[in-house]
Amino acid sequence: MPQYLKLQPPLIARDHFLLQIPAPHPEIETCATSDSLGRILSEDLFAPHPLPQFSRSTVDGYAVRSAETNGASDSLPAILRLAGEAPMGKVAKQPVLSGEAILIHTGGMVPPEADAVVMLEQTQLTGTDNLEIFRPVAINENIIQIGEDVQTGDLVIPAGRRIRPVEIGGLMSFGVIHVRVHRAPRVGILSSGDEIVSPHESPQPGQVRDINTATMSAIVRESGGVPVDYPIIPDDPEALFEAVSRAHAENDMVLITAGSSASSRDLTSEVVARLGKPGVLVHGVNVRPGKPTILAVCDGKPVIGLPGNPVSALVISGLFARPAIHKLLGCTDPVYHPAISARLTATVSSLAGREDWVPVVLQPSNQGYLAEPIFFKSNLIFNLVRANGLLHIEADATGLAAGEVASIEIL
Amino acid sequence: MPQYLKLQPPLIARDHFLLQIPAPHPEIETCATSDSLGRILSEDLFAPHPLPQFSRSTVDGYAVRSAETNGASDSLPAILRLAGEAPMGKVAKQPVLSGEAILIHTGGMVPPEADAVVMLEQTQLTGTDNLEIFRPVAINENIIQIGEDVQTGDLVIPAGRRIRPVEIGGLMSFGVIHVRVHRAPRVGILSSGDEIVSPHESPQPGQVRDINTATMSAIVRESGGVPVDYPIIPDDPEALFEAVSRAHAENDMVLITAGSSASSRDLTSEVVARLGKPGVLVHGVNVRPGKPTILAVCDGKPVIGLPGNPVSALVISGLFARPAIHKLLGCTDPVYHPAISARLTATVSSLAGREDWVPVVLQPSNQGYLAEPIFFKSNLIFNLVRANGLLHIEADATGLAAGEVASIEIL
Repeated sequence: MPQYLKLQPPLIARDHFLLQIPAPHPEIETCATSDSLGRILSEDLFAPHPLPQFSRSTVDGYAVRSAETNGASDSLPAILRLAGEAPMGKVAKQPVLSGEAILIHTGGMVPPEADAVVMLEQTQLTGTDNLEIFRPVAINENIIQIGEDVQTGDLVIPAGRRIRPVEIGGLMSFGVIHVRVHRAPRVGILSSGDEIVSPHESPQPGQVRDINTATMSAIVRESGGVPVDYPIIPDDPEALFEAVSRAHAENDMVLITAGSSASSRDLTSEVVARLGKPGVLVHGVNVRPGKPTILAVCDGKPVIGLPGNPVSALVISGLFARPAIHKLLGCTDPVYHPAISARLTATVSSLAGREDWVPVVLQPSNQGYLAEPIFFKSNLIFNLVRANGLLHIEADATGLAAGEVASIEIL
Repeated sequence: MPQYLKLQPPLIARDHFLLQIPAPHPEIETCATSDSLGRILSEDLFAPHPLPQFSRSTVDGYAVRSAETNGASDSLPAILRLAGEAPMGKVAKQPVLSGEAILIHTGGMVPPEADAVVMLEQTQLTGTDNLEIFRPVAINENIIQIGEDVQTGDLVIPAGRRIRPVEIGGLMSFGVIHVRVHRAPRVGILSSGDEIVSPHESPQPGQVRDINTATMSAIVRESGGVPVDYPIIPDDPEALFEAVSRAHAENDMVLITAGSSASSRDLTSEVVARLGKPGVLVHGVNVRPGKPTILAVCDGKPVIGLPGNPVSALVISGLFARPAIHKLLGCTDPVYHPAISARLTATVSSLAGREDWVPVVLQPSNQGYLAEPIFFKSNLIFNLVRANGLLHIEADATGLAAGEVASIEIL
């Protein structure tokens, strides 16, 4: 007989699970900043010098003494003598004397004695050096001061930040060409089930090819972990315990997708319970698909038992595996669930008290996006291949009607 | 004097630009399916056999002849004799005879003569083989038929699809362990400007470190291209032409970030115009930041000239460089711009007729997300490092007021 599960709400289950993971795992690596995209910074970056390091013009124009433009207008321009040009990439040595202006380019160093820059478009040069200025400028107008972006010692990138292209730019602006990042956690991936064969084999009648190992490996990689695949395990307690123990010893985390039968699923929980303390924290979450999920931490390492169908794998990995990997990585970035609004083309019902996740096909229309729910008789992989979004129905809702606008997470 | 630009609306500019790119570029590679995450499939995948390949149970229960459960209820259960168990992973040979039921597990092969499966929870076994059934089942209930997911010859994954974890699962379900994908386009990345030095060097007064090469390389990598970096080029027409010509010859696409001065930007457009036909298609788009953008196709290869500040690089790469890489890749997936709704903490004004993109800091609050606009005196890299979203103000809007709810693209 199957075990009857005590179902927990997914967010409570997740918090309980994540709290038991001692994180981040301690190993640090050095990598070239140019190769650090997506890695997690392991130490705070403080500014070693101000940015910018010199006062720069933000426009193409003329460096002036601002007081000498007071009252300038189209009908009564201020008149200054063009006395030179500030060189790009070099020290601007020539000071702006009273009655003078110096040509300056965007990004050029503001010359001594100048306190503002007039935009080129607000001036007219007549003859070789007679400059008419048609608008007054205020002190510091069109100038970035030393340290206006960052002051020496400012915390500019905190430890735990996932490195995006802009962080790489920020690091380069200080000449930081190597960074210290958390080692990506190794995640052992196991599939069990007497009916499962490797994708490299031809299934005999009654057998199916394993799709979970490859799918979960890709999800782990997307989440910042390093997947480590293991061979398929038959529904035998000792073979399963031996394989799971080995994966637990060799990795920072373990994902097990059980065979589809109840006995296979029950085996998984018994085996996980033997791996270490505190052991199984949650068995059963109130979400469809994914109800028989097992969340465990064994000797400091997270172990997740997933139901064997592909939609469950996707939903449960998003709810539990990805956050666990982020915690092992020391990633402190808030998690956003990017979504778009779309109008449902069909009514979707849901049991009150249970969260539902329904794959949908998003289609643009002249009234915004439409979302066509994909109803599963069971969880067929190619229905999911067709999907490009997931509709989330909260636990307190009993469904959503055709024509309602819902928020769809992008797959 | 700077060139005066004829500004084009960004979407019109993009369509004009993309139409001139002959795509996809023709080279195909084979890679292991398990390593194909994010690659673009280069040929349609048709199902070589049906899925599933045999009729499977979707539940744990008993295989029966459905007619023999007609009228079953709690008070008057149908009574059948438990005659055996369908093995997992093997052919179910024993037929279900009249008056009999056979134990079956989720995923097990449905035995001959059975046409439905009763869920375990709707039965009671008394003694060793006396099975009481409390609900009638319809024909095919709790069974997936052969070919119900996919029929032989169905187009299951179209060419041009970006491979996600579920596509890897779908490929594995057919035993497709190698796939043909488009070679990732090589994108030459050049930065010019007399004031720019490599991040490996110490800038002298008046100089700044190059952040654009590294930032653009990371964006190219995120978009599915292979970045190829070139040394920094001074503001000299012949040096620039030589470097850009070489990058154009050695790559499938070229990105040039110009120095900040107007003369440097003007040089870029003159040099690009000499590379090949049709040459510069667009010079100037009506978007802030990013106005002086150059879009060109030269001898079949896209060439983009970007203004040198980091916010422009981000916005313009999203609008033009990423779609160009997708076109070279043959990627046909629709592009979604995942976003979340957030309440603005400050008013943002915009010129009618011009699109604006404003970096924001998203923060959760008890009334949903808040978006704090980051106002730029100029485009400072660390202001962008602080940002985690972009507010898009459409060309026909003159701004958004504090307190309004806006859609924020996630960075």
